[in-house]
Amino acid sequence: MQRKRFNTMTCPIARSLEHVGEWWSMLILRDASAGLTRFDEFEQSLGIAPNMLSRRLSALVQAGMLEKRRYSERPPRDEYLLTERGRDFRGVLFALMAFGNRHFAPEGASVMLVDAASGAPAEPVLVDRHSGKPLVEPAFKVVPGPAATGRVHQRLARREAGRAS
Amino acid sequence: MQRKRFNTMTCPIARSLEHVGEWWSMLILRDASAGLTRFDEFEQSLGIAPNMLSRRLSALVQAGMLEKRRYSERPPRDEYLLTERGRDFRGVLFALMAFGNRHFAPEGASVMLVDAASGAPAEPVLVDRHSGKPLVEPAFKVVPGPAATGRVHQRLARREAGRAS
Repeated sequence: MQRKRFNTMTCPIARSLEHVGEWWSMLILRDASAGLTRFDEFEQSLGIAPNMLSRRLSALVQAGMLEKRRYSERPPRDEYLLTERGRDFRGVLFALMAFGNRHFAPEGASVMLVDAASGAPAEPVLVDRHSGKPLVEPAFKVVPGPAATGRVHQRLARREAGRAS
Repeated sequence: MQRKRFNTMTCPIARSLEHVGEWWSMLILRDASAGLTRFDEFEQSLGIAPNMLSRRLSALVQAGMLEKRRYSERPPRDEYLLTERGRDFRGVLFALMAFGNRHFAPEGASVMLVDAASGAPAEPVLVDRHSGKPLVEPAFKVVPGPAATGRVHQRLARREAGRAS
């Protein structure tokens, strides 16, 4: 299926989704963050068709999220390791986990984050690293950055107008 | 295209993606967070085909992320407003924005979060609401929750084993 790509968009959310937004990709990153590295491990964990898994792994390698490393010459076998960029995606995965636990886990949490020392459940919240203040509106707002295009300026101006009304 | 659904999985990340993981859905939520409400506004912002937009909006309404409200009877016109659940998704969008700015914005940020009072750029970081500590490993870890299935226990046990080795 041919679909419109997001990569002509300058928005960082669209750019991220261009690389990790395909069905399965984020679950592969979840499993990689959980320590899985080998094709058959991902296949078994996800119940995904091999040709699809193969395509998704290649795309994640190309996006610089995973690194392919040969671990056996005979037979030839590769494993897939998170790059630094791939590890940095954990913040998004944690945010998705917290959101899913809050909204789509009627039977209770199946996985959760805890303080490794005390075992106390953690409640993820996004804050500004400098001030420590929670990143909520209206204390914080989204504004055009130095590389903003006309379309971004328009979209955010529309928003300011909507607020004022 | 028929694809395997994630909704039989108990993982909160999979559950979230089941509702917002389709191509376009997160960008629609981004635009809704930015104040867009009407079909033609989303269509123009995203350059998306009307039938696709229609399907995605319906799915987001069904997932409880958007609420459909009639704003004109003649002609009949609906708008789409974020629900509380939809607003709560902002944390994930902010995490994706920060990730995209760090990794996929070679020309600089096109949008960014700033402190509304001072204008200082914010640097989003995920912390534990209670302790204020950054949610990074090994200080925090993912463990099975009360509703964990055997598969979740296996996946996380595999991970602990990988760490110890």
